Order: sequence, then structure tokens, then C-alpha cells
Amino acid sequence: MSNIQKHKTTVAIYGQQYVIMGTESPSHVRLVASLVDDKMREISYKNPTLDVNKLAVLTAVNAVNDYIKLKDQLERLQEELQKEKD
Amino acid sequence: MSNIQKHKTTVAIYGQQYVIMGTESPSHVRLVASLVDDKMREISYKNPTLDVNKLAVLTAVNAVNDYIKLKDQLERLQEELQKEKD
Repeated sequence: MSNIQKHKTTVAIYGQQYVIMGTESPSHVRLVASLVDDKMREISYKNPTLDVNKLAVLTAVNAVNDYIKLKDQLERLQEELQKEKD
Repeated sequence: MSNIQKHKTTVAIYGQQYVIMGTESPSHVRLVASLVDDKMREISYKNPTLDVNKLAVLTAVNAVNDYIKLKDQLERLQEELQKEKD
């Protein structure tokens, strides 16, 4: 039997309820949901004619873009740390 | 006048076309779009009853979650690097 505790957290994103299941704590899930909600509202404000479906996809594009940039930054830092240690 | 070059890249995500404007290179935009497309297909495969709108929102939730985890990792590495330098 697994010791990993699974949580079930209900969040609201852009007026719609979602039940998120996973090992993350409910407070973490709520933080993530509020960031997605904020980003959707920001993109919607800049592009008021977008339908909710495209809005959500563009929010995902935005988040993945930020992720990749951060990943590059992390890799550079890892190299720098390795050099400091050598 | 700004020297920053703006690109307009057309991508397909989950069967829908999007025109993405920004300073990122078209190849970077295409990479991001393909990652979002992959993630949407993965989530859809695991949750075949989800409508496309919820699917896109959950993809955004997933991407923001990965982003936050990576950000924590980056911060820990920055602290470690600072200690190595001190």
C-alpha cells in the first residue's frame, strides 16, 4: 500500500469549479489555481473577443513559455554551480 | 522606435489554429505550442469525458504547477550558489 497521501481540492478558475486530485497540498493547489485564474483574466482583459476555450489554451501557452525560460535559467545556474564546485 | 523585433507565428494546438504575436522566435513558439498540444492530449487520454474548455484549463493548471516547482528548485540552487561563493 502506498504511503503517499492523496488530496482532493475543489477550486474555482474563471467562474468554473474544478476538483483537483493529487499529492499536492490543498494550499498549493489553491495557489496554482489562483495564478491560472489571474492569468486568464489578464489575457482576457487584453483580448476581450477571445472565447473561453482559446483563452484557456493561450493561458497554457503562456505558462509553458514561462516554464521553459525558467528551465534555461536553472540549467545555466546548475552549470555555474558546478564550476564553483570544481 | 523600438528595436525589438516582433514575430507573428501560426501554430496548431489540439486541432485549432492560433496566431501568437511576440518577441519570441517562431521556433520557440512552435516548441511551446507542441508541448501544450502534447499535454492536452495526455490529459484528454487520462480523462476522456472532459470537454475541451476544462481540458485547456487543466493543462494551464498543470503548466503553472510545474513552473512553481521549478521556481522553488531555482531558488534553492541560487542559495546554494551564494553559499559556494561566500
